[in-house]
Amino acid sequence: MNKTKIAISIGDLNGVGIEIALKSHNIIKKFCEPIYCINENMLNRALKLLNLNLPSNFIISNLDGDFNITPSLVTKESGEFSFNSFINTVNLAKETKVDAIITLPIHKEAWAKAGINYKGHTDCLRDIFKKNAIMMLGCEKMFVGLYTEHIPLREVVNYIQKEKLIDFLIDFYNEVKNEKIAVLGINPHAGDNGVLGDEDFIINEAIKLTNKKLNKNIFIGSIVPDTAYTPKMRSEFNYFVAMYHDQGLAPLKALYFDESINVSLNLPIIRTSVDHGTAFDIAYKNLNPNNLSYINAIQEAIKLSNLRKKC
Amino acid sequence: MNKTKIAISIGDLNGVGIEIALKSHNIIKKFCEPIYCINENMLNRALKLLNLNLPSNFIISNLDGDFNITPSLVTKESGEFSFNSFINTVNLAKETKVDAIITLPIHKEAWAKAGINYKGHTDCLRDIFKKNAIMMLGCEKMFVGLYTEHIPLREVVNYIQKEKLIDFLIDFYNEVKNEKIAVLGINPHAGDNGVLGDEDFIINEAIKLTNKKLNKNIFIGSIVPDTAYTPKMRSEFNYFVAMYHDQGLAPLKALYFDESINVSLNLPIIRTSVDHGTAFDIAYKNLNPNNLSYINAIQEAIKLSNLRKKC
Repeated sequence: MNKTKIAISIGDLNGVGIEIALKSHNIIKKFCEPIYCINENMLNRALKLLNLNLPSNFIISNLDGDFNITPSLVTKESGEFSFNSFINTVNLAKETKVDAIITLPIHKEAWAKAGINYKGHTDCLRDIFKKNAIMMLGCEKMFVGLYTEHIPLREVVNYIQKEKLIDFLIDFYNEVKNEKIAVLGINPHAGDNGVLGDEDFIINEAIKLTNKKLNKNIFIGSIVPDTAYTPKMRSEFNYFVAMYHDQGLAPLKALYFDESINVSLNLPIIRTSVDHGTAFDIAYKNLNPNNLSYINAIQEAIKLSNLRKKC
Repeated sequence: MNKTKIAISIGDLNGVGIEIALKSHNIIKKFCEPIYCINENMLNRALKLLNLNLPSNFIISNLDGDFNITPSLVTKESGEFSFNSFINTVNLAKETKVDAIITLPIHKEAWAKAGINYKGHTDCLRDIFKKNAIMMLGCEKMFVGLYTEHIPLREVVNYIQKEKLIDFLIDFYNEVKNEKIAVLGINPHAGDNGVLGDEDFIINEAIKLTNKKLNKNIFIGSIVPDTAYTPKMRSEFNYFVAMYHDQGLAPLKALYFDESINVSLNLPIIRTSVDHGTAFDIAYKNLNPNNLSYINAIQEAIKLSNLRKKC
């Protein structure tokens, strides 16, 4: 099989992304063909600041833009460039010149300064493809799909609607193709039979109907949230569906902070991402930022790409 | 210093509590003086079923009640006896015949069958002492105090009130006496400056005012919930305040399931408890149920008792 072609969105050049990309190139080129969405000028500026030599076979996809890198600062220029790099990767994927894209961290405020009004990559991808992207975070040991994401906690219960949840579960299954997925309840003790809220009845009903539609007992739940991620549960399940942001991400980041990645499911293209930020506190200090999330993001993109090729 | 005197509520005799108590006696008697709230008849019945001999110096506090132990069944009799054992320990503590009480697991449905309408020990203690007990769970590495507990998720935001939270934080500090306590926000990204809900402003204000009242910067927050329990955060904090049940307990049980205990703070008496249930699936099967939570509950009771003696 040919190596997977991956376009790499270089992220905010004032942050750690470029250092991670440069220092990991010799590792990742063994299992994929990376194309870095940056131009020669900017690459040279970064290399100079990092006191690094250009790794061999470091293929770039040309891109407009030239500005002074100002380590650890939120600037309009870095915001704009990181957005253009991202759009560049998306276009390469749309044109099927690459099999997947990986995004290095952008800075939301830098995007705002550049007049880019998306909350982040996922939001932008939803808009580009007019599709309900699903956010899934995690690592091989534990992936969590988020049924709701960036909404106030007070609004979460309003989203617990049978049909919407069924659609989500079916989309999620079609993407991850795992045969045993835990679905968390929403109330303490999953509602304790209605004593602590009645939304868990809706979740139970949605699970039942989804399994019926799929003609397989894929989804198990609703699982009592506070014991959903115990060692025993994690030995039984690798995929979880959380009803809201922190229900999924607080336990995940408690357990697997460095390893975790972010995956956008339910889109025409494959996109995975590191699950950390620009780390301005350590940018351009040659402190060798942890690249585990980056490596895992690439490996997951390869896995997802191979899955799609099989279909 | 004299050994701490601890009254042990024996829990549901159809479950694993008594096996844990008997098999751990020789360990715990080294660092405390346990008094088991059970009677001779019931003790002999359990010993026979477990095929165990009575450990030496196994002091019991006499108690009415005699019934057939029926392993793993929910019965009125075991519910009633476990309640009486619990009340026995509370009375011993009230009369200062013991320094603390430890509770082994009861079965809520068995209590209901016996006409006891409390949701659990903490609820009952609140009623007995007419005090707002604080539930704290965890182990030495990480304790989490719960600002709200057994309420539907949809109601949680209504409890985010400045004065109530200040009272809670001051009570919490007075009990744990830790000098650096993390207070979690409530919305994703702690509200992202109001974009994802405005309750975090109230939490921030409450933290500020509490620290002012205490004249020390004890409480830090509001902390972004999904990264509150990362390895880095856990190296900085041992005490956390969670705004709701699963925000505190899902990460705790993901990390430290077997070690965790339950502590009732803000009461005239000291009470700690194992953080597991009756484990009917392994009761009376001589499978040596894990006693780590029990041992930790005893050690925490001793620690809290010594703290109070100092005050």
